[in-house]
Amino acid sequence: MENFINNDTIAAIATPPGKSALGIIRLSGDKVFEVAAKIFTGKNPALCDSHYLSFGKIINQNNEVIDEVLLSVFKSPASYTGENMVEISCHGSNYVLQEVMTLLLANGARHAKAGEFTLRAFLNGKMDLSRAEGVIDVIDSESKAAHRMAVQYMRGGFSDKINFLRNEVLNILSLCELELDFAEEDVEFASSNQLVEILDKVEKEVNHLINSFQLGNVLKKGVSVVIAGKPNAGKSTLLNSLLNEERAIISEIPGTTRDFIEDVININGIDYRFVDTAGINHTHDVIEKKGIEKTFEKIHTADILIYLFDISIINKNQLIDDLKPISHVEKIIVAGNKIDKANNEKVEEFKVFLNEEGYTSVFISSKFHHHLDELKSTLQQKLKPELYAGETAIVSNVRHFSLLKSINENIADIRHQIATGISKEFIALNFRTITDLMGEITGQIINDEVLGNIFSRFCIGK
Amino acid sequence: MENFINNDTIAAIATPPGKSALGIIRLSGDKVFEVAAKIFTGKNPALCDSHYLSFGKIINQNNEVIDEVLLSVFKSPASYTGENMVEISCHGSNYVLQEVMTLLLANGARHAKAGEFTLRAFLNGKMDLSRAEGVIDVIDSESKAAHRMAVQYMRGGFSDKINFLRNEVLNILSLCELELDFAEEDVEFASSNQLVEILDKVEKEVNHLINSFQLGNVLKKGVSVVIAGKPNAGKSTLLNSLLNEERAIISEIPGTTRDFIEDVININGIDYRFVDTAGINHTHDVIEKKGIEKTFEKIHTADILIYLFDISIINKNQLIDDLKPISHVEKIIVAGNKIDKANNEKVEEFKVFLNEEGYTSVFISSKFHHHLDELKSTLQQKLKPELYAGETAIVSNVRHFSLLKSINENIADIRHQIATGISKEFIALNFRTITDLMGEITGQIINDEVLGNIFSRFCIGK
Repeated sequence: MENFINNDTIAAIATPPGKSALGIIRLSGDKVFEVAAKIFTGKNPALCDSHYLSFGKIINQNNEVIDEVLLSVFKSPASYTGENMVEISCHGSNYVLQEVMTLLLANGARHAKAGEFTLRAFLNGKMDLSRAEGVIDVIDSESKAAHRMAVQYMRGGFSDKINFLRNEVLNILSLCELELDFAEEDVEFASSNQLVEILDKVEKEVNHLINSFQLGNVLKKGVSVVIAGKPNAGKSTLLNSLLNEERAIISEIPGTTRDFIEDVININGIDYRFVDTAGINHTHDVIEKKGIEKTFEKIHTADILIYLFDISIINKNQLIDDLKPISHVEKIIVAGNKIDKANNEKVEEFKVFLNEEGYTSVFISSKFHHHLDELKSTLQQKLKPELYAGETAIVSNVRHFSLLKSINENIADIRHQIATGISKEFIALNFRTITDLMGEITGQIINDEVLGNIFSRFCIGK
Repeated sequence: MENFINNDTIAAIATPPGKSALGIIRLSGDKVFEVAAKIFTGKNPALCDSHYLSFGKIINQNNEVIDEVLLSVFKSPASYTGENMVEISCHGSNYVLQEVMTLLLANGARHAKAGEFTLRAFLNGKMDLSRAEGVIDVIDSESKAAHRMAVQYMRGGFSDKINFLRNEVLNILSLCELELDFAEEDVEFASSNQLVEILDKVEKEVNHLINSFQLGNVLKKGVSVVIAGKPNAGKSTLLNSLLNEERAIISEIPGTTRDFIEDVININGIDYRFVDTAGINHTHDVIEKKGIEKTFEKIHTADILIYLFDISIINKNQLIDDLKPISHVEKIIVAGNKIDKANNEKVEEFKVFLNEEGYTSVFISSKFHHHLDELKSTLQQKLKPELYAGETAIVSNVRHFSLLKSINENIADIRHQIATGISKEFIALNFRTITDLMGEITGQIINDEVLGNIFSRFCIGK
């Protein structure tokens, strides 16, 4: 971590390039007021109160006015980084912002690296590491669900949970270590039962977090939904009807192969990436077979599969046959289409039958937009909404996910050690590893390389 | 103007779209603190001092946190618009900014129109019209020269000059009008001499401003330089050498016809748009003739023409012949190329000769980068640098230019009226028109349509 500790004055343009009303340059560091005062004609920032806005001109060495600006003053520790900070609100011209940056660099500031402001906030204890990782997720978020998770991260929901668990483990660890100190006296401060109790508790929470990752990951990236079915089952019509109903059509994204088109539809704040597929048909045609193989590939990588069938022309035995090759898919919704062409009895019959076979089913008419709302709510239910609703800690970060898995492995080791009656020394060692892994999530224990990797994902100026 | 007077609460995203560290939303109007307080958890802006920054959360109707933000408070009249204002500094995510905007709109703000903040600043007397027009030029500026002019405009250099002249005219006008009040007593408050004196003074300044427009306009848009000459005179080599020497190569801009390529090169803060042309040759070939015609068209629309000739193969009579068809071009630089292949005597001889013929000449070697600096400084001299250096009011705005021309026409009218001994009544009328025209420049006298046109050029949020 020592490689990162530095409080020289850094500067960066913090707004996107382009012409606009305002453009902001951000500065942080020990000399920030001195640097700013050299080019700013308004009140000397060092003499301003913290959280004060001061109007003035930016001038160059020839006393030429570069811009009229507002300068915000933040005094350590009451700033984003914890250091003295200044923000310069300029007119939103790339030329002006570049000129002001050039002046700042000539007067003692240096270009900030990606994420360096937030890195300093972390190093100065303004936020822990997983909260800092939430900051970048907030900036990256493009849907309500992704944004909500990111804000929870940034506000510390996840860190709070980890810190709570870490304290539990630290307590039991200290009992184990105390026991080692008194090893010769053969006293027991932490009984096997107590250890198991703590392990159960931690494991339950950690598993809960690990399980949330699948959800967190799909919420972050968008849920991939494959629509499959025989030719003419109405797959394209369904997709078009969904697209018509939901305003948030982001774009048509060409799939990895030209045969698959993805449409992103936002339903109740969650992005779904719908993939239309070639029809699944029994065929001997080589080219068509290739298409079907690709469809199956897509099905196996999807988060949710909607299997669409035409209820007006199929019987139960045919459907059972058709479902066979995909019956092992975990998250499948079997959707009977064209109910406008079938009588209610037949629909009711299929509903009961699919329920008996253990399938989640809906019955719709894509063409007439019947029961599409039911299909949408079924989609959301497939995403484990009980986990999503009101949950304050959903893991969406791969780094956190793999650390949590390591914690679980160590828990399993300890269970094994307890069962085999191994010395507390080794058990304590494993508990220590668990607290370290938890500390790595929140950044209490972290190495330079990991830190470097995390903050390089940030944008310049954050 | 009454159509524009309005102090309802307007809101706009004031930074460009894109992911970045910060994104700013700006609000102005009579209910701005109430609107902000509804969605902001920090200190109530109405209770803050002006120019105070307050940290807090933006929350929606369900108490969900949308972002953690800094809110700047500006109290009327100490703000950009002169009204109460708030700026919300969010994380730079389009999603977050859109969500915050949605909340603001749901809580009583409306979308600001293009330029509406600056329009309010103008209507509330925070800046006059030509200064407001400078604001948009600052944002649009892409070169040092354009930026410098725009800052002068924004800071009021031009308005100050116009206001000074307007006061002079108002003084003489009031004398004329006084005379009309005492018409029966046949006294003379303003003698013809006095009138002519004022006219001379105003006309001189107005002419100076009118003359600055050509410069202002080219500085704003970039100076177009056509390089012409016979095939193999080294036109492309010259262009490439200039491109290699100057860092600020902006891009290759395809010309209006495919035969002309423009390269923008920034020399000493001024953008030059270099246009390479087909060679000028005596030819009977139809297609080649067409190319030459186009070259001549380009020459006549250019701000500066560089005529390049190969000094190593040409004699004086040939050169005179070649220069004939372009000898009428006002801003021409005759450049002898390939001095590396000619002896000093010949170069000296051509220099003297061209000087006698009244041409500005330079002698270079494009290939070996000899004397290119001289060519560059000659280019700058051709732009009337005496006007540029230290000048505080260069006109770059077409609206101002045409108003200045109308002023001059009125001056001519008055001169004619004085000469013909016409009644002061008519003279006073013309003086009144002049003050009105000047008032239209600074916005003291302006109609809604003109105002609407001016501010529609602005970006949203400014």
